[in-house]
Amino acid sequence: MSFKVGVIGYGNLGRGVECAVKNSTDAELYGVFTRRSLESLKTLTGAAVYSVNDVLRHKDQIDVLILCGGSATDLPVQTPELAKNFNVVDSFDTHAKIPQHFENVDAAAKASGKVAVISVGWDPGMFSLNRMYAEAVLPNGKDYTFWGKGVSQGHSDAIRRIDGVVDARQYTIPSQEALDAVRRGETPELTTRQKHTRECFVVAAEGADLARIENEIVTMPNYFADYDTTVHFISQEELDRDHRGLPHGGHTVRCGKTGLNGENTHIIEYTLRLDSNPEFTSSVLLAYARAAVKLNSEGASGCKTVFDIAPAYLSHESPENLRRRLL
Amino acid sequence: MSFKVGVIGYGNLGRGVECAVKNSTDAELYGVFTRRSLESLKTLTGAAVYSVNDVLRHKDQIDVLILCGGSATDLPVQTPELAKNFNVVDSFDTHAKIPQHFENVDAAAKASGKVAVISVGWDPGMFSLNRMYAEAVLPNGKDYTFWGKGVSQGHSDAIRRIDGVVDARQYTIPSQEALDAVRRGETPELTTRQKHTRECFVVAAEGADLARIENEIVTMPNYFADYDTTVHFISQEELDRDHRGLPHGGHTVRCGKTGLNGENTHIIEYTLRLDSNPEFTSSVLLAYARAAVKLNSEGASGCKTVFDIAPAYLSHESPENLRRRLL
Repeated sequence: MSFKVGVIGYGNLGRGVECAVKNSTDAELYGVFTRRSLESLKTLTGAAVYSVNDVLRHKDQIDVLILCGGSATDLPVQTPELAKNFNVVDSFDTHAKIPQHFENVDAAAKASGKVAVISVGWDPGMFSLNRMYAEAVLPNGKDYTFWGKGVSQGHSDAIRRIDGVVDARQYTIPSQEALDAVRRGETPELTTRQKHTRECFVVAAEGADLARIENEIVTMPNYFADYDTTVHFISQEELDRDHRGLPHGGHTVRCGKTGLNGENTHIIEYTLRLDSNPEFTSSVLLAYARAAVKLNSEGASGCKTVFDIAPAYLSHESPENLRRRLL
Repeated sequence: MSFKVGVIGYGNLGRGVECAVKNSTDAELYGVFTRRSLESLKTLTGAAVYSVNDVLRHKDQIDVLILCGGSATDLPVQTPELAKNFNVVDSFDTHAKIPQHFENVDAAAKASGKVAVISVGWDPGMFSLNRMYAEAVLPNGKDYTFWGKGVSQGHSDAIRRIDGVVDARQYTIPSQEALDAVRRGETPELTTRQKHTRECFVVAAEGADLARIENEIVTMPNYFADYDTTVHFISQEELDRDHRGLPHGGHTVRCGKTGLNGENTHIIEYTLRLDSNPEFTSSVLLAYARAAVKLNSEGASGCKTVFDIAPAYLSHESPENLRRRLL
């Protein structure tokens, strides 16, 4: 089977999907659909560019759309709308709103007979899968998710909104002490402050009051006030040289007990170390796009998450080969 | 849903299933089926004991059988035979013979309309799952499996067969150097000797020739000759005190590249640290037993592996709760 992918939105994630398709043996990039003016947009691989308003005209040529917009305003509208005509995959990541998003998308996809996979990526996504498998196998236990070391774009943006800040990059860093305690099976109760620290690299405007900027960062509610935060002032040149990438990753760890009286302890840990958060997320999206096409070709429809899809659907290989090589 | 489990065979694995059922909220232990004399067998929790020859008489009371025999001679016969009348789950782990076992079991389970899940545990099992997911997400990469630190029962048995050896325990240990190189994304080519070392604790008979025993161990083909092996002679008392457990674990690591020209590197690592190999394996078996019952109640039949079963089937929770809590 080969399948044709349409990409909706051409930011970091859209470019990541373009690269993931190039690295795959069975996916083909039909084109990129954008809200921008078509002349201004040049794709990395020379893929065709279309107006997002024309997507329905290409309906019969596309097997699955990968939606690369944001969770705040794009996906809540786009995913249910496009599921009326296409198999779709999105990376909707506003955890609290997933149940509502699922309902909206499910109704649209059931009515159209298409498959829509939501909340695909690494968290939600691969981390969710690992939390779920680990809990099912070790029901008597406790789990922990640590994020980082990695760049949080939301936190970086929050710093950039402070008066006198020219540019900024924020890293979320798991506490080694907390991680070690969890790995030793101590099942600690951890506060927000004990789990992660935050490190900020800030370019200030000439003559700006650095002490005031630092204070505004470390006391910022929701973003920094609950964490131990370190602020480094650096030059724009240093920021561009040393902090251009978007690395991320983290750990999900479950500690569970078995035995007649819980006398044996088991640790399941899943770790990601990612050079590029958007490129990894895109790679997960493409694997689930393949699954959406396969499921739909078998007659499935409606909204799915990573919990609902058997692993073999993600692979381009036959079940026989998977059993022989990887089981 | 609650479901009734029958256990075939009552060694370490069977006792592990008994404990896993006790720790679960929705499974119930119907009974243990054994080849031994019924009087001689006392279960940990007081579960009923029956002769394995009578299992068909209990057919209507049992939702799923968990087969706890060995892969060499028990499971190749038992799994297809019992799949004629029951949903079954086994931990068949002779990798090279999985395709043949699958065919035999699939024919039986398709004919009976039952679900049979084979090769469940951690390798094959959870490690296979992680190899498969990681490859599907990062097709341009290389993966590594390291086992240990843990007790290899096959290698311990091989040492015990040497003349002059009273008892022995063998640990498989991943090379820290090799693991670190893999984690750094260096994708090394590793020989068998570079990946693992073997450490043996041996109780020798009084007056035995220790040098001869050590030499027979380290030169033993298939088992030890390809590894750097350390032999420690200790007393039976020390062996019983310090080496009674059956810990195991390991790592599956995939290093994959993304980007237009493979410029970004990603590491996916799944780690298990298990106090009790058989109890963890049993816990995985019980989760897939639940899946077998659910799948069969939806009309599915035939042989399945971990690749063919959507994660949500392993959990006793509703899809809504899984999405809300774990996605």
